[in-house]
Amino acid sequence: MDLQLPMTAAALAERFNGRLVGDGLREVSGVSALEDAGPGDLAFYQQKRFSEKVRDLRHAVLLTTEELVVPNDALTFVLVQNPQRIFTEVAETFNWYPDGCENVDPTAKVDPTAQIAAGASVGAFSYIGERVSIGAGTRILPHCYVGADVSIGENCIIFPRVVLNPRVTIGNRVRIFSGTVIGSDGFGFLPTEKGLQAVPQIGTVEIADEVRIGANCTIDRATLGATRIGYGTKIDNLVHVGHNCQIGSHCILCAGTGLAGSVVLEDQVVLGGQVGLGDHVRVGKGAQIGSQGGTTTNLKANQTYWGTPAIPVKESLSTFRLMKKLPEIWRRLARLESRLGEETS
Amino acid sequence: MDLQLPMTAAALAERFNGRLVGDGLREVSGVSALEDAGPGDLAFYQQKRFSEKVRDLRHAVLLTTEELVVPNDALTFVLVQNPQRIFTEVAETFNWYPDGCENVDPTAKVDPTAQIAAGASVGAFSYIGERVSIGAGTRILPHCYVGADVSIGENCIIFPRVVLNPRVTIGNRVRIFSGTVIGSDGFGFLPTEKGLQAVPQIGTVEIADEVRIGANCTIDRATLGATRIGYGTKIDNLVHVGHNCQIGSHCILCAGTGLAGSVVLEDQVVLGGQVGLGDHVRVGKGAQIGSQGGTTTNLKANQTYWGTPAIPVKESLSTFRLMKKLPEIWRRLARLESRLGEETS
Amino acid sequence: MDLQLPMTAAALAERFNGRLVGDGLREVSGVSALEDAGPGDLAFYQQKRFSEKVRDLRHAVLLTTEELVVPNDALTFVLVQNPQRIFTEVAETFNWYPDGCENVDPTAKVDPTAQIAAGASVGAFSYIGERVSIGAGTRILPHCYVGADVSIGENCIIFPRVVLNPRVTIGNRVRIFSGTVIGSDGFGFLPTEKGLQAVPQIGTVEIADEVRIGANCTIDRATLGATRIGYGTKIDNLVHVGHNCQIGSHCILCAGTGLAGSVVLEDQVVLGGQVGLGDHVRVGKGAQIGSQGGTTTNLKANQTYWGTPAIPVKESLSTFRLMKKLPEIWRRLARLESRLGEETS
Repeated sequence: MDLQLPMTAAALAERFNGRLVGDGLREVSGVSALEDAGPGDLAFYQQKRFSEKVRDLRHAVLLTTEELVVPNDALTFVLVQNPQRIFTEVAETFNWYPDGCENVDPTAKVDPTAQIAAGASVGAFSYIGERVSIGAGTRILPHCYVGADVSIGENCIIFPRVVLNPRVTIGNRVRIFSGTVIGSDGFGFLPTEKGLQAVPQIGTVEIADEVRIGANCTIDRATLGATRIGYGTKIDNLVHVGHNCQIGSHCILCAGTGLAGSVVLEDQVVLGGQVGLGDHVRVGKGAQIGSQGGTTTNLKANQTYWGTPAIPVKESLSTFRLMKKLPEIWRRLARLESRLGEETS
Repeated sequence: MDLQLPMTAAALAERFNGRLVGDGLREVSGVSALEDAGPGDLAFYQQKRFSEKVRDLRHAVLLTTEELVVPNDALTFVLVQNPQRIFTEVAETFNWYPDGCENVDPTAKVDPTAQIAAGASVGAFSYIGERVSIGAGTRILPHCYVGADVSIGENCIIFPRVVLNPRVTIGNRVRIFSGTVIGSDGFGFLPTEKGLQAVPQIGTVEIADEVRIGANCTIDRATLGATRIGYGTKIDNLVHVGHNCQIGSHCILCAGTGLAGSVVLEDQVVLGGQVGLGDHVRVGKGAQIGSQGGTTTNLKANQTYWGTPAIPVKESLSTFRLMKKLPEIWRRLARLESRLGEETS
Repeated sequence: MDLQLPMTAAALAERFNGRLVGDGLREVSGVSALEDAGPGDLAFYQQKRFSEKVRDLRHAVLLTTEELVVPNDALTFVLVQNPQRIFTEVAETFNWYPDGCENVDPTAKVDPTAQIAAGASVGAFSYIGERVSIGAGTRILPHCYVGADVSIGENCIIFPRVVLNPRVTIGNRVRIFSGTVIGSDGFGFLPTEKGLQAVPQIGTVEIADEVRIGANCTIDRATLGATRIGYGTKIDNLVHVGHNCQIGSHCILCAGTGLAGSVVLEDQVVLGGQVGLGDHVRVGKGAQIGSQGGTTTNLKANQTYWGTPAIPVKESLSTFRLMKKLPEIWRRLARLESRLGEETS
């Protein structure tokens, strides 16, 4: 991450143990998609079918593998073994992440009992409650609400306008994007004569290291105990995680997905967009559910599911194929009946 | 609610007219789920199938009924008629709800024409507009925006970062969780030669007593008149209520559900998660719609519906069962045809 | 928009080149729905079937066309060619949009390098970052976060608590409602030995003139290049637009809809509520998708689609009709088989 741009194509090749082909003095000052690449840009060429496009990029530096190099004197290449990983590392230097503050912004309101590590920062108008603990290198951006007894690890980024309700614990290197609310009440009620009475939601939320939560999500606190999100899990925008859910490691939850209470996702589960899982559903390790799928029953490990109710994707695809043939089935059935002299029931 | 913990098992039994079995001097200082209960915890034992688990809880106090008591000298029980209700009352004392302020926080911006009752509070960085009225005992937590002419009743909790747009009225004992936006413009347009022109949304939103609205919801104001949410209705997270909707009393709307404009829910309607209702749909009293169901037509009272389009759940379940048999239907139809010497159409 | 109420029915008729029928001195001081109209209200009468209701409105002023006038001495009409457009113009004067600030509120934090045009305003507790540019007549309401290098055009309204992340560009006359987050990271990862590594999302978001974005939406920035929303497009609440999406002009996206990455909507596409589109889907000009529909394949221009997977609406309706007849198909098939002496397979 200590990459300093601009740098020449030759220096880039040396830095990443690559091979230079073409003009080593060409400068790289930015990155771009193949279709937009101009002078100063590093572009990433990944698939042979784009080789025609590449021929026009006489002013950019092309990052690719030995196999994909195009013999053309006018072009400059840096050839490496894993161009995508290296492109990502260079692109990282252009990240938009705001500082928004230096140390503790004077407009922030920080309780005197909060512990803010050296090298952590708190942005404008953020509220940091009693006994909050914030680890080194963590940046709390503007307009965040961090309730009492929240613990945040090291090197996290809490983007503007996140709510972390009291007692929530956040691991290290976690990113939580704007508008997300963590540790709000779960949705549980007791019927009484006067109507529904809220069941106190006095548990918490525990978020492990390397978790990423998108914008405008809601992760509810447990009734008792903790709602948990495991190591390395990545959550997209507008996702709802109900109270007492237990989400494993390295899961992926795409945008608009909702988990009712006490759902268990084992490790490496992948949920597409707008998936819905009912109370207490357990999804086995490595299972995948296609977008808009939904279920109220448990799903097996390492299978791919789709539909509402979700069934193995091969079955759901063949079902859908035959659903479109229902008019034909209807006609053929009627014809058989008329041949047999039956009247329809 | 004036319960003071820690208290002994004997005192707890006396307080709730229960019967003590075991060690009356054992102290209760917290509550927990049965599987986590340790020393000092009150745990709630509800079903016979957990009786094995209960045998190990030699350090906790167990709250249950006379029927479920386990004869075991090492255990301590408090036996009552409605253990769930009493557990809820004890748990309530551990609620996480933040104060976030005392009276009006000095960082809040409150218009001089706003009326804030004695015993109400306004948190850090909250904005209270002109002529706003806030009732006794109501807590506005940090980062809230309360627009001009908003009226909020007594003993409400408005969690951090709620937006109440101008003129909205909120009843008593209402809870609105973080990120929710009330009284934004409804989604209505007139086609013109230059494109779509917004129809002014100059109505309001009226929220009755005892309503609970989750995090990151959107409740739009009416075009004219009011969008209304009736007494005791409970709304989960990420729910959308369109302009001019009329929601009755004691309804339940689960997470991710969306109501288009002018939807009418009669009293005690229950909508599962991710349900979608089209413009002007009316749902009869006590009707229920299963998760991910959707409809653009009216639904009858006291029926349970599912699917898109939503049909009575018995029909939709038998339909789904037969959908999975479509491959079999297809094969059997073809076999009949071949027996009859037909070619497929 | 320089309409000054109250005004008499006669003045209103003159102003809009209409014809007065009835009491020209009757005053109009408000607008209302037909069912609520009382003294001082202008009500809009649009359909003959409401003529009975109209007979009771002896104190209101009725806006309608020559064709719909009801001969009744007690009623007062203003007759115009396009009553809906004129009603909209009058209603506009009652808009609730808050000022929330005059010029730059003293509690706002504005970087000295930001350029705020004369006649623009910044509300309480808003944060305006480095090199931000805000055009004339634009109102930034309270609690907004405007990151570094954001550019906002003229006469926009950015409602309370919007997040505009760094480098985002917003056109003229754009409205963005509360809680919306623009320019958050797209959801893209590379698998590595240690788990998923975020692909830097270093592109931006470009929003054209006359766009309207509802409350609590998320519009992610592009990986490289820009996520774009075209001229005049209207987006409802809780909508997700993934990274690199290209949305054309005059599109309509209803509440709860989600677009995965790199989706292309050509001009005038209409998406109902809770629609879901997969990565790289292209929807042709003027196509429509009914609520809760979803697809991972391209859709043709000027067609109407429904269902998951979305198919032309005529097909999906006939499929749904026959799905409900599956129990009948099953019975008839079994009867044919028994007549032919077959056993079921």
